[in-house]
Amino acid sequence: MAYINYSRELLDKFCMEAFQKFGFTEPEARIISDVLLMSDDFGIESHGMQRLVRYHKGIESGLIHVDAKPEVVFETPISAVIDGHSGMGQLIGHKAMEMAIEKAKTVGVGIVTVRNSNHYGIAGYYARMAMDQGLIGFSCTNSEAIMVPTFGKKAMLGSNPLAWSAPADPYPFFFDASTTVVTRGKLEIYNKKQAPVPTGWAVNKLGASSNDASEVLGNIKAHEGGGIVPVGGDTELLGGHKGYGYGMICELFSSILSQGMTSAHTMQNGFSGICHGFMAINPAFFGDPEAIKKHFEVYLEELRQSPKADGQPRIYTHGEKEMEAIKKVQAEGIPVNENTVKEMIEMANYLGMDVKAYFGDFKSTSEVKSFY
Amino acid sequence: MAYINYSRELLDKFCMEAFQKFGFTEPEARIISDVLLMSDDFGIESHGMQRLVRYHKGIESGLIHVDAKPEVVFETPISAVIDGHSGMGQLIGHKAMEMAIEKAKTVGVGIVTVRNSNHYGIAGYYARMAMDQGLIGFSCTNSEAIMVPTFGKKAMLGSNPLAWSAPADPYPFFFDASTTVVTRGKLEIYNKKQAPVPTGWAVNKLGASSNDASEVLGNIKAHEGGGIVPVGGDTELLGGHKGYGYGMICELFSSILSQGMTSAHTMQNGFSGICHGFMAINPAFFGDPEAIKKHFEVYLEELRQSPKADGQPRIYTHGEKEMEAIKKVQAEGIPVNENTVKEMIEMANYLGMDVKAYFGDFKSTSEVKSFY
Repeated sequence: MAYINYSRELLDKFCMEAFQKFGFTEPEARIISDVLLMSDDFGIESHGMQRLVRYHKGIESGLIHVDAKPEVVFETPISAVIDGHSGMGQLIGHKAMEMAIEKAKTVGVGIVTVRNSNHYGIAGYYARMAMDQGLIGFSCTNSEAIMVPTFGKKAMLGSNPLAWSAPADPYPFFFDASTTVVTRGKLEIYNKKQAPVPTGWAVNKLGASSNDASEVLGNIKAHEGGGIVPVGGDTELLGGHKGYGYGMICELFSSILSQGMTSAHTMQNGFSGICHGFMAINPAFFGDPEAIKKHFEVYLEELRQSPKADGQPRIYTHGEKEMEAIKKVQAEGIPVNENTVKEMIEMANYLGMDVKAYFGDFKSTSEVKSFY
Repeated sequence: MAYINYSRELLDKFCMEAFQKFGFTEPEARIISDVLLMSDDFGIESHGMQRLVRYHKGIESGLIHVDAKPEVVFETPISAVIDGHSGMGQLIGHKAMEMAIEKAKTVGVGIVTVRNSNHYGIAGYYARMAMDQGLIGFSCTNSEAIMVPTFGKKAMLGSNPLAWSAPADPYPFFFDASTTVVTRGKLEIYNKKQAPVPTGWAVNKLGASSNDASEVLGNIKAHEGGGIVPVGGDTELLGGHKGYGYGMICELFSSILSQGMTSAHTMQNGFSGICHGFMAINPAFFGDPEAIKKHFEVYLEELRQSPKADGQPRIYTHGEKEMEAIKKVQAEGIPVNENTVKEMIEMANYLGMDVKAYFGDFKSTSEVKSFY
């Protein structure tokens, strides 16, 4: 499966035009495009351009209501509950994190929980919004059920990422990870590549290990059982119950506190119901924020400089790879999977955009297999 | 290695007498004993009676200052920073969580970070203190370095447990887990049993997999390299970088916000320097707390009732096993490893206690191998 490199500017222009054609305002399209492109900037292919098809199909099918505005249904100086009214997840998430940041600046902490939203892109985008303001940021989201709990065979939790970010130089701390071994997006990429997935990632509908991305994704889509296992694996020996527990923390901050839909109830009967959680913490409420930041930087540098395992040239701190990926994108552009390009062209045609202006005379070399 | 069952009452009386003999007041001994016995109540042998020897040796060597009082060095309505002045970890932790709870009741959230403390027992004890008051509780602690970061061969993080608890019936949510695959305490138990540890838990000083608890514990004690791997394993394929990331969140709330010692600097030169983090969140600041609790209970029950993997009779939610363990302890008493009994007898002799009154004519059947 071939990749084609496009300039960031071209893809940004494409997203801006497409989302405005879908009916979003220019500032709204700006936020949505920023969230998607940050994922590709960071080398997280699964949540960048390759996810456009989901938003396209979501808007087309009515899962995503373009005109919906997030409503604050409960609020205190440190907290808020937002009903997303099935709007675009990125816009709801952005508003929620802005509220959490404002509260953290004023009273030290802001926690905002959201119900009835849609997929909001990478969780880390929102955590980073807080980090950009000198705060510790946290964000999480549930999703269509994909994680099979320890000893189960039916997916009952989402990929349920927890994302944290905190100020540090030269590499801000940025840790954004699903509480499953891998995300659904990773399986989607293996499926597009038509490559077998590694053992220990997924189980089929009987609960047995599977290397077939197409089978696992098909079962998830059809609610036929199976899914991805929690980080730590499918038993307790190597800590699968821990990944399952981290997934539960995600539900607590998203679907439980907001009294929204837990993962197993989302994305059914034409209704999304995805829930998110956000927190911003102000280091200035614990001492001199500059001194705290310096203290963190010393530790991060000690980690990077600590002795390497045989054959390993480097120890990373979380966020370092993302900063390096940005440099690569700036130099080389963003690599887009050929199947993703086909999906983007389909979307551009649907919206009546000038396909040639973006993709020239693109010709695919393989069959697209889409699950949307 | 044989186990002997003792009544909870007898062990409680033993702890109460011992800690008062060490110089703690009766209310202080009450807190310390409660923390230790909750671990045995919950079937978490590693942090119950088997840890007494560490406190004994810690007090004897001057790591733990019996008379030290925790000092609040920074405070706002939502936050506090405590300097433990090398006091007993359980007493510092208890005070810190009480402050977090009080703040959460008043303003919705309380976050307290602690530096210069000592081992504080199971992290879950403090999370549960908040849960008992109808709040969401969080606690974490760093420890002597034991976790080797992904691609490293030197332990740079502690076992770094994150513990969460939240109200629910019939089983409160209680999730307390090290961010390593297993805790050091688990290795100590394998060492006492003289059994090989499972592959995928630990690495030797060269960074290679080891099944020898004695070797790994010895290297950790001597700071010779190696240690336990993060949950997710020693590579990125199954998510080892995620366990490493969760361990970093623990450092953030404990050693970073408090500007205390990060794990790799603790427990050296006769100084402990252990740091903790605490958070309490009041559900009443997000809606009707009873409705939120009910909503959580429905989800927990759905998880327990969801389809089981072939050959698995049961899916647990976090906290269920602990509630069942309590019932077992009430019926059968607490099983104590023979080597642990020998350590307790040694401690009782050191304190001039009436050993026979507790242990009768106990005779061991094997050699103790202690790392303290």
